Amino acid sequence: MSKPKLQIALDHNDLEHALADIMKVGEIVDIIEVGTILCLQEGHKAISCIRSMFPEKTVVADTKCADAGGTVAKNVADAGADFMTVICCATIPTMQAAQKEVKELQVELYGDWTYEQAAAWREIGIKQAIYHQSRDALLSGETWGEKDLSKVQKLIEMGFNVSVTGGLDVDTLKLFEGMPVYTFITGRGITAAPDPVKAAQDFKDEITRIWGQ
Amino acid sequence: MSKPKLQIALDHNDLEHALADIMKVGEIVDIIEVGTILCLQEGHKAISCIRSMFPEKTVVADTKCADAGGTVAKNVADAGADFMTVICCATIPTMQAAQKEVKELQVELYGDWTYEQAAAWREIGIKQAIYHQSRDALLSGETWGEKDLSKVQKLIEMGFNVSVTGGLDVDTLKLFEGMPVYTFITGRGITAAPDPVKAAQDFKDEITRIWGQ
Repeated sequence: MSKPKLQIALDHNDLEHALADIMKVGEIVDIIEVGTILCLQEGHKAISCIRSMFPEKTVVADTKCADAGGTVAKNVADAGADFMTVICCATIPTMQAAQKEVKELQVELYGDWTYEQAAAWREIGIKQAIYHQSRDALLSGETWGEKDLSKVQKLIEMGFNVSVTGGLDVDTLKLFEGMPVYTFITGRGITAAPDPVKAAQDFKDEITRIWGQ
Repeated sequence: MSKPKLQIALDHNDLEHALADIMKVGEIVDIIEVGTILCLQEGHKAISCIRSMFPEKTVVADTKCADAGGTVAKNVADAGADFMTVICCATIPTMQAAQKEVKELQVELYGDWTYEQAAAWREIGIKQAIYHQSRDALLSGETWGEKDLSKVQKLIEMGFNVSVTGGLDVDTLKLFEGMPVYTFITGRGITAAPDPVKAAQDFKDEITRIWGQ
């Protein structure tokens, strides 16, 4: 079983705080995500700064694109992003337009989506899906459970590389034992920790403990 | 019947071109939208520049927000936006969090949504919906038709202020005659016209011709 990657989501309100945090842990994580909040606050510079600081890392632009897929994808790719997110309720033509411009597209699963839609994404060649516990849903008291895990498993069986995110901590990872999760995504799980470097390393170590080298 | 407003969508790739266009037609239109592409390229400065140039106009941040509603809404309101868009597949907690931070929220209708969802949006006090012909769908050859108009009418009957957008031109407006459309939104219908000032005025004149003073 392939070993899940660790992705840090930079959901800062400004570039200064994002760069201060990523400087510390950028070399530990596998993938660096320029979060939606940061994209909307700082624009393409947020992506291009991360790209230039970490030329060897995979960079994700979390645009949650819903329309104008071609233009948005070209812009983030020009700024240095490898992956870009689209929202699950985007139309197939939007996703197809975006696919042409970036290395890989990731469908963000929010709210009501169906396996029928997911099959259509696979059909146009989309490889990645992100299973999400909405931050706002988490704030309302919802947590990870069997329902979530079986959805993740089904998406994996459909052929998706599935990343999971939302309220993850080191202790949550073992819930996914035995599942070939593609990437664990966390933001504050690292950046809000008392020692972010230790937190990032703890995530990596726990992944290695469960999934092996 | 109230007279529809005219909204220009600034979907430019950079602030320079957006400001050059809005300088010409900003005083003619009723509402200025900082489009998704521009938000993602230039960040909060795109909103704050428009706000400072046109202090009397209504400004929309077209974030198509899908998560972290409270933070995104606070950020765009701080930059000067009156309205903000959320995507229809955002969860109710996300919409509620966003609602607290901006004057009004607009739900962008993309892909598969249901009237049951729409009723839930009304229930939490959301007043505005945007009925969209996706740019990518338009590029694939889809156009405005009876199916669209009946959906718009139904949303109006549910109590929404409904804005319409996607491939609109001056000749398309009469399709909506007799319907209290809240706002007509166009980008390139004005900015890509040979004479943008004339195009904006033509839209305004046609709205007045059909809906009265």
